[in-house]
Amino acid sequence: MLQKPRGTRDFLPGEMARRRAAEAKMREAVARWGYGEVCTPTFEEVELFTIRSGENIKKEMYTFEDKGGRQMTLRPEVTASVARMYVNEGRSIPKPLRWFYVADCFRYERPQKGRYRQFWQFGVELIGADSAAADAEVVMVADDLLRSVGLEYDLKVGFLAPMKHLLAGIEPGLQRQVMGLLDKRDFEGLANCLQTCGQDELEDALTGLVSCRTPDEAFEICGDIPEKERIQEIFSILDGSETEYTLNFGIVRGLDYYTGMVFEGFAPNLGAESQVVGGGNYRLAKLFGGDDAASCGFAIGFDRVMVALGETPMPRPPLVAVLSQPGLQAAAFRTARALRAAGVTAELNLLDRGIGAQLSHAAKTADFACIIGQREAEAGTVTLKDLHTGEQREMGLSEVVAGVKGVGDR
Amino acid sequence: MLQKPRGTRDFLPGEMARRRAAEAKMREAVARWGYGEVCTPTFEEVELFTIRSGENIKKEMYTFEDKGGRQMTLRPEVTASVARMYVNEGRSIPKPLRWFYVADCFRYERPQKGRYRQFWQFGVELIGADSAAADAEVVMVADDLLRSVGLEYDLKVGFLAPMKHLLAGIEPGLQRQVMGLLDKRDFEGLANCLQTCGQDELEDALTGLVSCRTPDEAFEICGDIPEKERIQEIFSILDGSETEYTLNFGIVRGLDYYTGMVFEGFAPNLGAESQVVGGGNYRLAKLFGGDDAASCGFAIGFDRVMVALGETPMPRPPLVAVLSQPGLQAAAFRTARALRAAGVTAELNLLDRGIGAQLSHAAKTADFACIIGQREAEAGTVTLKDLHTGEQREMGLSEVVAGVKGVGDR
Repeated sequence: MLQKPRGTRDFLPGEMARRRAAEAKMREAVARWGYGEVCTPTFEEVELFTIRSGENIKKEMYTFEDKGGRQMTLRPEVTASVARMYVNEGRSIPKPLRWFYVADCFRYERPQKGRYRQFWQFGVELIGADSAAADAEVVMVADDLLRSVGLEYDLKVGFLAPMKHLLAGIEPGLQRQVMGLLDKRDFEGLANCLQTCGQDELEDALTGLVSCRTPDEAFEICGDIPEKERIQEIFSILDGSETEYTLNFGIVRGLDYYTGMVFEGFAPNLGAESQVVGGGNYRLAKLFGGDDAASCGFAIGFDRVMVALGETPMPRPPLVAVLSQPGLQAAAFRTARALRAAGVTAELNLLDRGIGAQLSHAAKTADFACIIGQREAEAGTVTLKDLHTGEQREMGLSEVVAGVKGVGDR
Repeated sequence: MLQKPRGTRDFLPGEMARRRAAEAKMREAVARWGYGEVCTPTFEEVELFTIRSGENIKKEMYTFEDKGGRQMTLRPEVTASVARMYVNEGRSIPKPLRWFYVADCFRYERPQKGRYRQFWQFGVELIGADSAAADAEVVMVADDLLRSVGLEYDLKVGFLAPMKHLLAGIEPGLQRQVMGLLDKRDFEGLANCLQTCGQDELEDALTGLVSCRTPDEAFEICGDIPEKERIQEIFSILDGSETEYTLNFGIVRGLDYYTGMVFEGFAPNLGAESQVVGGGNYRLAKLFGGDDAASCGFAIGFDRVMVALGETPMPRPPLVAVLSQPGLQAAAFRTARALRAAGVTAELNLLDRGIGAQLSHAAKTADFACIIGQREAEAGTVTLKDLHTGEQREMGLSEVVAGVKGVGDR
C-alpha cells in the first residue's frame, strides 16, 4: 500500500476547514493594512537561497537538476523569492511595496513534532521604506495577524545595533558565536567564550544589554550609537499603539542578513518548538542584482499557529441531505438545486437505498434531512427533519430555506 | 540577475486578486454541493503516478531521489494523490466522500501559451458512489463551478461503453490507436487504420457513433449494451437539470483508467489549448491497495480559466492613504488603527516627505487621502480628499468611515 512521503501530511476536510478559516482571518487583517498578495514559483535556482542563507542550507533543501543542467530546489522559505521577484518585476511600481504571501515551503530535515518537510508560511514583505514607522508597521501587522486568529503568544522586539556596537572589536566568526550564545541565553557558555578570546570585560555589558527593558537602559550600556533615534522612534510608536511586546536587545535571529530591527513571537503552549513568527529588516535586493532597497518582513509558521490554536471544530453552515423514495430522484435533484440557489448547502443521496438507510447515513453527515416521498412530490412540499432534535414537519421550500438558515452555523 | 525558472510565473497583487476572487467563487459553489476541501503533499513517490498514468509520464515529471534512496516527484496531477489518501485515511468515513482540492501541479514540458511548468487545478473527487446520479452530480458540479466565475464554455459529455463495445474484437493496442483518431476526429486516419487491420466494416459504425446526438441513436448502432440503463439515466438527469451540454460518444480522454462516463469542457476563446476541464469515472483505489471504490471526478485547469476570463481588474474595497505633517505620525497611526477597526483599508505614509509628496504618491495607489495637519490634530478631525474627484473636506472619523464605505468597491 502506497503511503504519503515521510514528514508530509494529508489534510482531511475538518482540518482544512480550520486552516482555511484561520488563513481567511489573517488575509482579512493584512488586507486592511493595504497589503496585496503575491505568488512566486515553488521551485527556484539553488543560488537564490544560498546567496541569502549560505551554503549550509543546501543540506536541508530538496534539490534536483533540470534538463538544462541547472540546479533547482524546492523553496525552503519565501523571502528570497519575493526579493528576486521585486528585482525582476517590482522596481517600476511606486514604493513602498506592501506584499504578502501564503505559501508552502520545504525542508529536508528529520521529521519531529511541529516540524514537517512541507510546511506553510504566511508572510509579509514591506519593500522600499527605510524608517522607524516602516519597522513598527511590520511588527504591528504581525501582531494583528496573530491576534486575528485568537492566538495567545509573546512578542519580543529588538534591534541589532546595540549588540553589534559592543561586539565591533571582535572578529566576525567569534561575533557570531557570541551572538548565538546570547540568543540561547547561555550565560555560562558566554563567559567561557569571552574568557577564551580575552574579552572578559564585555561580559557585564552583554548580559546587561540582554536584560534591558527600555531603549534608554541600553544606551547607557552601549552609548549614543547612530541608530539611537531610529530605535527610540520604533518603540515609541509601538508603545503608542497598545502593542503588547517585550523589548529584548538579545534577539539575534538565525540569519546574518538582518540589519536592524528584529522580532520574534512564541506561543507558550507549544513546548520546545514554540516560535510562531520571526522577522526584521534586511537588504536583499542588491544581492540579487537590484537596487539597495530597504526591506522589512516576517514569516508566520502557519502550521504551528494551527497547533497552538487547538482542534476546535470550525462552525459551518448547516448541511441539508436531500433524500427521496425510489423513482423520485428527479424531484430530489430539483429540490437540491433550488436550495443551493437560495444559498443552502445541500447534498443528494446518490446510492440505491431506501429512505431508512438514507436517513441513517444522513444522521452521520448532515444537520437536516429534506425528505421527498410520494405524498410530498404530489403536494409540491418536502418533509424537513432536524437530525439533531428528531423533530420533523411537512412544509414548502421557502420555509425550509428560512428554517435552515435560521439555525445559523453548526 | 537571478530570474524565475523557465516556464514558471510570478504573480503580482492585481493578478493574484483576480485569481483569488475566481477561486473564492468556485469554493462557494462547490461547498453548496456539500464538498469538503482536502490537501495532499506536493511531492509523492514516483510509482503513485506511473501506476495511474503509465511509465511514459516519467518524462514529464520533476523527479528527485531523497536521502532514503526513494524516487520522489512533484505531482503532475492530484487524482492519484487523493486516491492514495482515500486508501490511507478515508476508508472509515461514511461514503460517499465528497472532496475537492485547489492545488499546484508540475509538468516538465516545453513552455508555450497556456502551458506552464507549475500550474493550478481546482478538482473534485466523489468516492464510493456507483450510480448515474453520482456521474450526473459530478458533471453538474463542474458546470456550476465554471459558470460561477462567468466562464462561457462548451461542455461535452460521453460514455466509453458504446465505443468499447464496438471495438471489443480488436486487440488493445490498436483499440487505443483507433480511439485516439476518433478523439481527434481524424476520420481519414481512422479509415486508413481500420483498412490496414482489416476492420473496414467498423468505419460506418464508429463515425456514426461519434455523431450521435441522443443515447438512443447510439444504441441503434452498438445494440443493447449492459450499460444502456445507466447511460439513459445520466443523460435524463442532466436534461432535467437544465445543464447545457452536447452529448458526444467520441470522447476518449487521454488516460486508460476511465471506465464509464467521461466529459470535457472547452473555452472557445482560448484557441488551440482550449480545454478547461476534464473528468469522468474511474477505479483507482484498488491499484493503490484499497477496496475497489467507484470514483468520479474532474480537474479544472485554473490558469486557462483565468486566461479565458480576461484581465478585467478586480473591484476592491476603497483604499485610504493616511497622511500626516512631520511630527504628527502618532496621530496618523491612531487614525489608521481606528479606520481598520471599522473595517476600512488604510495605509500609512512611511517615508519622510511633505504632504505634497505624500499626496502625489497616494494618488497612484489609493482612492482617498486622509490628511492630518496641525489644525486637524488639534481639532480631532481629518481632511478627507477623494483622489478621483479632487473634492476635499474636514470631518470627524465616523464621517470618514461612512463616506469611504458608502462609495463601495472601486
